[in-house]
Amino acid sequence: MDRYLLISSDGHAGLPPERYREYLDPQYREKFDEELAKEIAERADAENAFLISDFNTKWRDENADGLDGAWDSAIRNKVMDADGVAAEVLFTDGITENNSPPFGGDLGMRPFDADPELQWAGARSFNRWLSEFCQDEPLRRLGMGLCPALWDVETSVREIYWAKENGLKGMQLSHIVEGYDNYNHPKYYPMWAALEETGMVVNFHSGASQPYDRSSPGWLGIYCSEYPFWLSRPLIAMIFGGVFDRFPKLKVAFTEVGGDFWWPAIMQMMDFRAKVKKGSAKMGDHSAKLALSPTEYLRRNVWIGSSAQMDDQNYEDYHKIGIGRVMWGTDYPHPEGTWPNTDEQMHGALDGLNEADLERVLGLNAAECFDLDIEPLNKIASKIGPLRSRFKQAA
Amino acid sequence: MDRYLLISSDGHAGLPPERYREYLDPQYREKFDEELAKEIAERADAENAFLISDFNTKWRDENADGLDGAWDSAIRNKVMDADGVAAEVLFTDGITENNSPPFGGDLGMRPFDADPELQWAGARSFNRWLSEFCQDEPLRRLGMGLCPALWDVETSVREIYWAKENGLKGMQLSHIVEGYDNYNHPKYYPMWAALEETGMVVNFHSGASQPYDRSSPGWLGIYCSEYPFWLSRPLIAMIFGGVFDRFPKLKVAFTEVGGDFWWPAIMQMMDFRAKVKKGSAKMGDHSAKLALSPTEYLRRNVWIGSSAQMDDQNYEDYHKIGIGRVMWGTDYPHPEGTWPNTDEQMHGALDGLNEADLERVLGLNAAECFDLDIEPLNKIASKIGPLRSRFKQAA
Repeated sequence: MDRYLLISSDGHAGLPPERYREYLDPQYREKFDEELAKEIAERADAENAFLISDFNTKWRDENADGLDGAWDSAIRNKVMDADGVAAEVLFTDGITENNSPPFGGDLGMRPFDADPELQWAGARSFNRWLSEFCQDEPLRRLGMGLCPALWDVETSVREIYWAKENGLKGMQLSHIVEGYDNYNHPKYYPMWAALEETGMVVNFHSGASQPYDRSSPGWLGIYCSEYPFWLSRPLIAMIFGGVFDRFPKLKVAFTEVGGDFWWPAIMQMMDFRAKVKKGSAKMGDHSAKLALSPTEYLRRNVWIGSSAQMDDQNYEDYHKIGIGRVMWGTDYPHPEGTWPNTDEQMHGALDGLNEADLERVLGLNAAECFDLDIEPLNKIASKIGPLRSRFKQAA
Repeated sequence: MDRYLLISSDGHAGLPPERYREYLDPQYREKFDEELAKEIAERADAENAFLISDFNTKWRDENADGLDGAWDSAIRNKVMDADGVAAEVLFTDGITENNSPPFGGDLGMRPFDADPELQWAGARSFNRWLSEFCQDEPLRRLGMGLCPALWDVETSVREIYWAKENGLKGMQLSHIVEGYDNYNHPKYYPMWAALEETGMVVNFHSGASQPYDRSSPGWLGIYCSEYPFWLSRPLIAMIFGGVFDRFPKLKVAFTEVGGDFWWPAIMQMMDFRAKVKKGSAKMGDHSAKLALSPTEYLRRNVWIGSSAQMDDQNYEDYHKIGIGRVMWGTDYPHPEGTWPNTDEQMHGALDGLNEADLERVLGLNAAECFDLDIEPLNKIASKIGPLRSRFKQAA
């Protein structure tokens, strides 16, 4: 094949807010009608706080034609074909985008100020719609359901089975846990068991954070420097909590963390903490409780969806993470993503990797993570995938 | 001089708990009497949770002779002479040690469950005693007063001036800020102004963390992997908050973070976030608000007290941090410190650095950070300092 199989590890999909009504359980629709205008206004406020003046608005205006691909199946396929994407992982949208589900059941879901019952209702409305959207193109759309996992575990388990039966490929869990049971807590064992049994991939996607005071100078630079840590916390908890010893086939992806140097630093920290005797002797031997080193768990159970934020040609760090772990992604239709300049940005980020590594980072790693049948995807890729000849190979 | 000037950037001092009574303002003594037994019992509980079985007890028994140097001036001098330490930075003690001040005004001070007035009372009782202890050896003892800075700023400012007038060289601030104003908040400007004007060094010392559920498996490995982040947060906040532009002579030290690879990772993250345009364009240009890059602020305003936790001969990372920024320390009298095997551990950690770098890491960086007069310290070092001839220099 003269083209690569390209699977984007990071895409977003979702309805315009008012259209989630019909996907909500009927008992929440009155509340939905009451809250809709307020929620849209709050998101506009958040967007004004988070985003510089008119960057998003301008970008949306310039690219209006393709943005309806967030929910329109035909437009989405057209964009994917043009981008060379054979299949893509689909997440919901967050507060600074236009297609968020209601009640805090969205990309940035976190426990603060959320009502568990309503957050679940919002998450479920998204999961139902996403399931339909993915069933339009079951080969090409790998849907991640929303799972506000910090609340009742039985509810999470039921939703995981529902999602599996309805064609989704994984679940996005909350990564902000402060004040709630962290993922080393035994209460989550039935949830990990359900995820392992169904082969559903656990996915943590960046966005949510601890609260920041938006009136203090520099808060956004602080947020941007700290959100990778908030996203990493579930990994630290799962590794030291022995989750991967108890559920050795569990698969976990961390998506759009930004800055590929971050994961090697976290891996080094965990390995250091698991092993070192002198400095931590008074606190016991953490390695004694683990069958593998933290890096070994990462290379067996974890994938890193590096999205469009990959630092340009940061190959040394890809190898530190493990070249079999890194998954490229377009982040369509977000303004920080590659679309509508995917070709240019893909080459900017990846030119110089050798062919085998390109195959993995562009598609095969994702195929392994999401347990995909390569043959039918290769058929699609053979028509639309990025041409091998256009990549500048390593010398 | 055939010996190095050795200044330890990390030492601990403090009274046995019952003896803080006389250093408390009288109005808090009744409360102190009520709480003392409970506080000692709580610390014993914390020690049992934090520390493996009898490691600390055994270590204390074996080293009982030298441990009273935590408060006994003569014993302390004997230990320092034997360790080759001409001068040392002195912090209070934490919950898992034996010499904590009352009311949560201790090494691990944090806002959770603390009563502001009482925490200040405890901190002040320590500051008074420490001031006396340092006045016994004003050249050799560089006291860090306690400043629970998250409460009323005027109180902090008054204590900073009191500490300066009473011979202390810096203040240890709380680094756990969650739920309170972070250090980018303008309310702290008068505090930074007082610290800059007095030349008192701001010091953040590892220990305190967000709460962890001690009944969940692996929580201690998680704590050990996450505490460097909790300690780093004030740096991120101060840099992006523009504190070092507004107070360009402010000096800040971060002590006993463990794992020298951590700071290069944090520096890389902050530099990346300050500069990168594509991934963060929708969130604005953080570099535009800062006169320098984060790494440039660190190399102008910040020192790293790497203590006994320095990874063995991790020279590449010292240079990434800046060889003029790293300060060695013994962490006496803590079990994870070098004492009573300081000589052996110092060579294990530092052999192979060249002479100029050794001079800086062992003493000159700390002298610059704490604005010390070298001449009288060199006189002490010329008798007790580590012999230059015993270090194996880089080839």
